[in-house]
Amino acid sequence: MPELSFTEYSLVFNVMSLCIASMFAGALFFFFSRSQVAKKYRPALLISALVPTIACYHYVRILQSFSGAYTLQGDTYVASGMPFNDAYRYADWLLTVPLLVIELVAVLALSKSLSRSLSTKLSIAAALMIVLGYPGEIASASGGAWLWWGLAMIPFFYIIATLYTGFGDAVARQPENVRSLFGKARGLVLITWSFYPIAYLAPWLGLGGSTGEVALQVGYTIADITAKVGLGLYIYFIALEKTEADAANEPVAVRTNSNGGTNATEARANGGLERV
Amino acid sequence: MPELSFTEYSLVFNVMSLCIASMFAGALFFFFSRSQVAKKYRPALLISALVPTIACYHYVRILQSFSGAYTLQGDTYVASGMPFNDAYRYADWLLTVPLLVIELVAVLALSKSLSRSLSTKLSIAAALMIVLGYPGEIASASGGAWLWWGLAMIPFFYIIATLYTGFGDAVARQPENVRSLFGKARGLVLITWSFYPIAYLAPWLGLGGSTGEVALQVGYTIADITAKVGLGLYIYFIALEKTEADAANEPVAVRTNSNGGTNATEARANGGLERV
Repeated sequence: MPELSFTEYSLVFNVMSLCIASMFAGALFFFFSRSQVAKKYRPALLISALVPTIACYHYVRILQSFSGAYTLQGDTYVASGMPFNDAYRYADWLLTVPLLVIELVAVLALSKSLSRSLSTKLSIAAALMIVLGYPGEIASASGGAWLWWGLAMIPFFYIIATLYTGFGDAVARQPENVRSLFGKARGLVLITWSFYPIAYLAPWLGLGGSTGEVALQVGYTIADITAKVGLGLYIYFIALEKTEADAANEPVAVRTNSNGGTNATEARANGGLERV
Repeated sequence: MPELSFTEYSLVFNVMSLCIASMFAGALFFFFSRSQVAKKYRPALLISALVPTIACYHYVRILQSFSGAYTLQGDTYVASGMPFNDAYRYADWLLTVPLLVIELVAVLALSKSLSRSLSTKLSIAAALMIVLGYPGEIASASGGAWLWWGLAMIPFFYIIATLYTGFGDAVARQPENVRSLFGKARGLVLITWSFYPIAYLAPWLGLGGSTGEVALQVGYTIADITAKVGLGLYIYFIALEKTEADAANEPVAVRTNSNGGTNATEARANGGLERV
């Protein structure tokens, strides 16, 4: 671990703490917002809630590991001798990155077969991307780092290509607002995810020392907040729009019904599963 | 950190602990009160719950950092050598202040476009205010502190001006009770938020030493309780009033239904999505 000035150490520490707060606030928001959307969109919101929950746990550990790896000497933070456990990030990504692609598919409520095939392909590619990246992260020579980076980029491009072209006309058939939100969500994935392979190579591109370490830790942390809570917010807005669009298209024959009723409102709140 | 007498240290410590209790109690109240109001006002209550949740986390850390920064010698608390992390407050405000303005807009359930434009403008201004304030907080010379204070005051006045004039006739169109409550909520923001820029300048206005430090910590803490839990309570009362007003305006054709039903009430509780 490179020596860090008081300001550098504080910046990393405080951004990590801010990340913990953002993750649990995001998770709570998504857990409690499930009741605002129709039943069929709730699994997508539930997954959107699990992602920052998992990340919150990992950031508590990352922060603890980071502060344990340093000790204050005068005005400078020097290595305490305890190792900083970078593997927490990969453990986190191994769980959350497949879930992120699954939530993006789930919120569209596509046909069962398309939904299942897209989720399977994308989540396997996402897990593979993380597994292939890790040996390069801990590589001690630039050759190994570049090799594993190259291998991990194959599923990375596959995911991006599938998000942009693999949904067939399923995206085109969505209501206009949903199409536009989905386009932005996809753009958010493209932009935030692109940060990781760049940051990954930073130590091998001459950005080393304390500046490199601070940039890497702060960069990963901000990218994680945006990719997880930011994407979850798009999922929430897509689910709201789709709930409204479904309600507007719903036949309202229930009105004439003489049943003991939890009526049209309920039927709609349940995502129009029940057509009476 | 200035030396503190036993009484001074205990005052700060106990007010911070009181704040932790107020924040989590407030958060729980708002989480569980969501079911008391119509569906469309629940997002406002959810945000009102997230704000003290986030603050509670930060106050646990602030209290820990404060007590770690001091050590008891005889009857006096002296600096332990560990730094007091003031950045927790700014990390907290960076998340909660934008959420506070969003909850105030959300509870009015305005048209989508007005609601979105007000939330966006106000939350960006709120984040900007905090980001501009921080460099002045850690400035070592009064020139820097005044400069950043002045810059942060621009978004501050913009927010206040928008709260008082930027809603067009949207406030005037609210039921009378709601108008009156909204006016009080706005006044609470104006008064509590004004405390921060004054406290900020305290060290540069000659209020230094232990008295200044105690006044600052106690002041920030009480202002935070009022601005977060206090504002949340107004949001709750506004949401209750609006739920009642909506129910009174709702056509009640459901009554003619021959079911065994609580459904007019249900329909209203669901925010009048269904007009029968």
